Amino acid sequence: MARYDRAITVFSPDGHLFQVEYALEAVRKGNAAVGVRGADTVVLAVEKKSTPKLQDTRSARKIVSLDNHIALACAGLKADARVLINKARIECQSHRLTLEDPVTVEYITRYIAGLQQKYTQSGGVRPFGLSTLIVGFDPYTRIPALYQTDPSGTFSAWKANATGRNSNSIREFLEKNYKETSGQETVKLAIRALLEVVESGGKNIEVALMTREEGTLKQLEEAEIDAIVAEIEAEKAAAEAAKKAPSRET
Amino acid sequence: MARYDRAITVFSPDGHLFQVEYALEAVRKGNAAVGVRGADTVVLAVEKKSTPKLQDTRSARKIVSLDNHIALACAGLKADARVLINKARIECQSHRLTLEDPVTVEYITRYIAGLQQKYTQSGGVRPFGLSTLIVGFDPYTRIPALYQTDPSGTFSAWKANATGRNSNSIREFLEKNYKETSGQETVKLAIRALLEVVESGGKNIEVALMTREEGTLKQLEEAEIDAIVAEIEAEKAAAEAAKKAPSRET
Amino acid sequence: MARYDRAITVFSPDGHLFQVEYALEAVRKGNAAVGVRGADTVVLAVEKKSTPKLQDTRSARKIVSLDNHIALACAGLKADARVLINKARIECQSHRLTLEDPVTVEYITRYIAGLQQKYTQSGGVRPFGLSTLIVGFDPYTRIPALYQTDPSGTFSAWKANATGRNSNSIREFLEKNYKETSGQETVKLAIRALLEVVESGGKNIEVALMTREEGTLKQLEEAEIDAIVAEIEAEKAAAEAAKKAPSRET
Amino acid sequence: MARYDRAITVFSPDGHLFQVEYALEAVRKGNAAVGVRGADTVVLAVEKKSTPKLQDTRSARKIVSLDNHIALACAGLKADARVLINKARIECQSHRLTLEDPVTVEYITRYIAGLQQKYTQSGGVRPFGLSTLIVGFDPYTRIPALYQTDPSGTFSAWKANATGRNSNSIREFLEKNYKETSGQETVKLAIRALLEVVESGGKNIEVALMTREEGTLKQLEEAEIDAIVAEIEAEKAAAEAAKKAPSRET
Amino acid sequence: MARYDRAITVFSPDGHLFQVEYALEAVRKGNAAVGVRGADTVVLAVEKKSTPKLQDTRSARKIVSLDNHIALACAGLKADARVLINKARIECQSHRLTLEDPVTVEYITRYIAGLQQKYTQSGGVRPFGLSTLIVGFDPYTRIPALYQTDPSGTFSAWKANATGRNSNSIREFLEKNYKETSGQETVKLAIRALLEVVESGGKNIEVALMTREEGTLKQLEEAEIDAIVAEIEAEKAAAEAAKKAPSRET
Amino acid sequence: MARYDRAITVFSPDGHLFQVEYALEAVRKGNAAVGVRGADTVVLAVEKKSTPKLQDTRSARKIVSLDNHIALACAGLKADARVLINKARIECQSHRLTLEDPVTVEYITRYIAGLQQKYTQSGGVRPFGLSTLIVGFDPYTRIPALYQTDPSGTFSAWKANATGRNSNSIREFLEKNYKETSGQETVKLAIRALLEVVESGGKNIEVALMTREEGTLKQLEEAEIDAIVAEIEAEKAAAEAAKKAPSRET
Amino acid sequence: MARYDRAITVFSPDGHLFQVEYALEAVRKGNAAVGVRGADTVVLAVEKKSTPKLQDTRSARKIVSLDNHIALACAGLKADARVLINKARIECQSHRLTLEDPVTVEYITRYIAGLQQKYTQSGGVRPFGLSTLIVGFDPYTRIPALYQTDPSGTFSAWKANATGRNSNSIREFLEKNYKETSGQETVKLAIRALLEVVESGGKNIEVALMTREEGTLKQLEEAEIDAIVAEIEAEKAAAEAAKKAPSRET
Repeated sequence: MARYDRAITVFSPDGHLFQVEYALEAVRKGNAAVGVRGADTVVLAVEKKSTPKLQDTRSARKIVSLDNHIALACAGLKADARVLINKARIECQSHRLTLEDPVTVEYITRYIAGLQQKYTQSGGVRPFGLSTLIVGFDPYTRIPALYQTDPSGTFSAWKANATGRNSNSIREFLEKNYKETSGQETVKLAIRALLEVVESGGKNIEVALMTREEGTLKQLEEAEIDAIVAEIEAEKAAAEAAKKAPSRET
Repeated sequence: MARYDRAITVFSPDGHLFQVEYALEAVRKGNAAVGVRGADTVVLAVEKKSTPKLQDTRSARKIVSLDNHIALACAGLKADARVLINKARIECQSHRLTLEDPVTVEYITRYIAGLQQKYTQSGGVRPFGLSTLIVGFDPYTRIPALYQTDPSGTFSAWKANATGRNSNSIREFLEKNYKETSGQETVKLAIRALLEVVESGGKNIEVALMTREEGTLKQLEEAEIDAIVAEIEAEKAAAEAAKKAPSRET
Repeated sequence: MARYDRAITVFSPDGHLFQVEYALEAVRKGNAAVGVRGADTVVLAVEKKSTPKLQDTRSARKIVSLDNHIALACAGLKADARVLINKARIECQSHRLTLEDPVTVEYITRYIAGLQQKYTQSGGVRPFGLSTLIVGFDPYTRIPALYQTDPSGTFSAWKANATGRNSNSIREFLEKNYKETSGQETVKLAIRALLEVVESGGKNIEVALMTREEGTLKQLEEAEIDAIVAEIEAEKAAAEAAKKAPSRET
Repeated sequence: MARYDRAITVFSPDGHLFQVEYALEAVRKGNAAVGVRGADTVVLAVEKKSTPKLQDTRSARKIVSLDNHIALACAGLKADARVLINKARIECQSHRLTLEDPVTVEYITRYIAGLQQKYTQSGGVRPFGLSTLIVGFDPYTRIPALYQTDPSGTFSAWKANATGRNSNSIREFLEKNYKETSGQETVKLAIRALLEVVESGGKNIEVALMTREEGTLKQLEEAEIDAIVAEIEAEKAAAEAAKKAPSRET
Repeated sequence: MARYDRAITVFSPDGHLFQVEYALEAVRKGNAAVGVRGADTVVLAVEKKSTPKLQDTRSARKIVSLDNHIALACAGLKADARVLINKARIECQSHRLTLEDPVTVEYITRYIAGLQQKYTQSGGVRPFGLSTLIVGFDPYTRIPALYQTDPSGTFSAWKANATGRNSNSIREFLEKNYKETSGQETVKLAIRALLEVVESGGKNIEVALMTREEGTLKQLEEAEIDAIVAEIEAEKAAAEAAKKAPSRET
Repeated sequence: MARYDRAITVFSPDGHLFQVEYALEAVRKGNAAVGVRGADTVVLAVEKKSTPKLQDTRSARKIVSLDNHIALACAGLKADARVLINKARIECQSHRLTLEDPVTVEYITRYIAGLQQKYTQSGGVRPFGLSTLIVGFDPYTRIPALYQTDPSGTFSAWKANATGRNSNSIREFLEKNYKETSGQETVKLAIRALLEVVESGGKNIEVALMTREEGTLKQLEEAEIDAIVAEIEAEKAAAEAAKKAPSRET
Repeated sequence: MARYDRAITVFSPDGHLFQVEYALEAVRKGNAAVGVRGADTVVLAVEKKSTPKLQDTRSARKIVSLDNHIALACAGLKADARVLINKARIECQSHRLTLEDPVTVEYITRYIAGLQQKYTQSGGVRPFGLSTLIVGFDPYTRIPALYQTDPSGTFSAWKANATGRNSNSIREFLEKNYKETSGQETVKLAIRALLEVVESGGKNIEVALMTREEGTLKQLEEAEIDAIVAEIEAEKAAAEAAKKAPSRET
């Protein structure tokens, strides 16, 4: 009972850091988020938890740019997210100013994960209640990247991954259905993955993508998402119809 | 029992930040406040909790300007409010001085929410017991804005929203009755919303508005409020009369 | 039981700041104090809790000047009061020096309330066990002012108000009997209010006033107070006599 | 039980500062001390608690000078006393150096009480376990002064007062027997007061006085005290004899 | 129960530092890691704990360079590892810059172990949940080195050693089978040791080596590892066959 | 039970400082120490608690010089003693350097007691577990002095005193037998006092003295002590014999 | 139970410092260590606790030089030892640089013990879990020295002493068998003492010596130790044989 209400992250007898694990609970309660890395496109798709009717959706954007060529989505405490995002953006700008070069996706991921780790080892602060998905293109090689960080401060690179509510189901879906995609196919995969745990429709989903060609984040309009969702459902229906009558096809 | 009396905000095993949630209780005990964003007018309306007879109402103003073009109302601890308001005002002035430009409504909202978040993650302080509603016009685009922040440090943009005592009832009313309004209609909507939880009359309500044209905060006189309340009640009576005898109308 | 003995003011599950409320208890145990704002006179009257016979009354003064044109009375911990008064006096002097202008009554009230709030939100200190009544004339407009601050750091402007022991009874009296007064009538109102909870006589009361004309604090002598008390009692007796035989008068 | 062992002075639910009250207990266990202000003489008299036979009485002096014209006696923790006395002496010297003027008795009293208050409001320290009696002559007006401070940091001016063990009995005696005295009569009054709670004799009493004329502290020799004690007892015996046979006198 | 949740590493009555021992539990839960020092080659081999299918293996590298001539593998908390590695890399660079010489393997080992010790003795931090294996060649003597550090901050030099999950079994294997090797034989020994606790195959193993000749870290490709694993298994099969029919050989 | 294990010295409800009293327990467990001030000689005598056979007695010296003309003995924690002694010695040197004058015995006693007091009032430290006896000659007046300090930070001057184990018995002896002595007689008195609680013999006793003439500390050799002990015992035997046959003498 | 897990070393009611005593437990669990001071040789001998087969013995050295003429062995936490040794070495170098003179053995012992004491009195740190034996020759007098320090920060000089596991048995042996030795005899005594608690053989023992002539530390090779052990055992066997047949000898 009294164990968790401590001002600092310390080890339990079996080697766990409780505050970090409790912070992960905050992540697990957050909106689902998916990231997919295609050959020439990176996509982030995020569940929009029932925005109240009068809320301005623009302000509720869960997918944000850190720099021209890097974007981030996260699951967990929104206010913590903003702090981390601000710090990351400042680091991006300051890197450009002092080194006259944009940061790489890995660089800023390390920076963010480093901040998260620091809050698990020093006294007087709590860990960030936050997991992030970071996408972008290397400013020099133009290679796409997808990283994930968590409250412990670990990070890892992925072809596709999910975090937040029900992320296990999404990850399973991705593992079964992932293949190297490009362009619109990459977007579709991300949305299909999210639809595993979110009720369909652009109202409940936020999607943003970055292509190698354009190199900056593009947020999809609700209508665009709805069109893709419709397409996905049509394909699914067709596939199921085909499954029921497989003999005919062949 | 002993869980809450800790000097710092830490995670509970299920990922909650207790001090933040207790601070929200202080907000829920505060006066009701409503914000409505119209096409050319933004309105804040606040419940005045039974001002003692001899209190100078001017000093009890719950709706204040942060800068010429931005105003704020809040629910929760009054003394905390003042601290936050002071800091925000200084930020507005300092922004003007160093950047030679006024702040945008979003900028100052981020600033306020950022302060609130900071008090949830560092040791030695408690969160602010305060939710705010911030309205104004963008100094460049003249677009109206309404934001809300809470003790966790999250913020969001709204067409209309409420906070404080009974804010859920008000929000429900707004969701049912909101439509894009302008001018006096926007003021009326805000007051109608507040009347859901406040006994009628200018004595119990404080209203202030900002129009695109004038661009500065105007506090309504008690008489002006009473007139609008009367108008609202007349309309309501007429509507109910109409409801009772709907056949005739048609 | 164990809840209150904490080094910092934190929220309880229902959104209260216990240390602030306990500090208010210290105020409620303090001497009663009354402030009345007349048209051209502001008055502070304070209960003198049975000064020991050999104590030098001058040193026990409970009504003090912060600057030429501003005075303060308070209820609560005397030693805390001195600290707050010293800081306020220094602020007054420093304002004069740096801005070459005296402070306004509101300015110094905000300053004092700001100090009080700060001691409710930072670690390592306790709130001030102190409520204050502040009176004075605006150095430019010559408008009289009466403010009250409390341990939470809130402040408010009043026509007349009381704090300390039995302040509720005094406030009720003031609400029933207040009318805009001037000169000696304002002094009389303040004393009448205090007599509600204090046994009559200049021995038990300390009174100081400031008139628009003179603009500095004048402490009443015991004899002067006794004269006014006598006058009040005569009036009261006459009124009661009148009440008993109301027919004759008309 | 566990309430008091806290690192900081905080409010109890009924508005008390426990650490301050516990510090007062340390004072109540300390030696009795009396201060009397005469027309031209100020006197401090202090109970000497059974000095061990081999202790050097000079080092056990309980009445000390802060500056030429100011002296102090105290009850409570001896080691705390020394700290406070040192700081006060330094303040006296530093005042002379920077302002080229000696401090007034009130100035140094405020300084001492201010220190005491500070130790009741900041974290990481405990209050001083100490009450003081401060006497002296104003360096300009040559008016005699007697102040008292206590662990809470309050101070007050007195004609005569006592602190430490049984100070209530002494104070009662003083209230019954005080009259404006001068010279030797003032000394006698102080000693008579102390004899209320101390067994007679110079061995158990320490007395020091300051006259307007000389203006510096003079410690009485044991013999001088014994002489006065004898005188007092003779007078008392005479008075009692007179009481038994009052008729003859008249 | 409540013993471990303390903000600082303190002694238990039997002289243990609990937080250090709990940190060791985190190590024991980490991936197995092996280090082998050959005559002209040093090898690190690390278990790859079931990388999720879509994770980018490159980012999951567990064997990293600290400087050209020094490499490190570790078991425990990944985020802690990154912090330690960053600090060590900065020390390597800073040593080069200020002393114009590369660090020795022992120097950087002492540096790392020193950091780890510091986090076990100061307040406000927890120990690193991390054991490391450090290999390299002395930049002057070209002598190969293998060191191990643990959460307590101790370090030691080894011919071959293991840490992390099941490290005891690996160490036993090494003690039975170690002999001075060189080149490919050293690599084989490290892999054979790891295969004691890891299911065979390059998928589950990460191997990197440094030869005296080349002097920089070379990560083995999965195919290269698979080839060596196959070789090992062939030898094992042959040996077992030989064991079953030992007579023929002779 | 849990009361004492607090990081700071605070008042108990009856006005005690527990950590100071527990520190006194450490003193009461320390070796007995005696100090005697004669007319021209000051002596310190200290019980040597069974030095292990192979220990170098020189290093175990319990009586040390602070400056040429001042020496100190103490009871309590040896390591604490060293810290205090070092600080005192530095103060002595620094006083000589800056004021070009040696310290007086009282000055350095105040300094030591001041340090001890400071450790009872500030957070984050514990009191010194130490009582001291300080002897010396005033560098100007050549008057001998003996002071005692204790963990609370109080000090006092004595003709003769004891501290540490069984100090009460020694003090009683001294009170019965003290008379102004000089030279060798002073030494003898100190040793006689210590023999009250220590088994006889130079092995168990350390004695050092300072004479007005020489003015520096002289440690007695074991043989010298043994000679005096023998003398004392002879006198005692003679006295007892005399007691048994008192009639003859007269 | 809960008493020891405190962040700071405080007194228990009976005057003990628990954290210091628990740190001593860590020492008692450490390897046995012996120091012997001969006429012209100082020797340190340390038990090597079963070095794992593959560990590099050089890195496990438990006897180290602090400066050319001073060496140290210790029992307790190895990582703590390194910190203390580093600080001591830096002090030695810095002393040489600033004073142009090497430190004496006592100087560096005081320095080490001083560090150890400091960690028992300040908040936020724990004591060092470490006892040390320090040997060397005075750089001026060439007199040999042996000191011991412990976690409380006390130190003492010895002819011969032991610390760590079973140090009591070793000390008893030394007390029975010590006599002033020189050269090889001193080495033999140290090893004989250690053999009391360690199974014989150079594998389990580490020995280092310093002679007045050479003045620097010389670590004995395993073979050299084995030779001496053999010699010791031969002597023992001879002695026992002699004991069985004592009559013949005479």
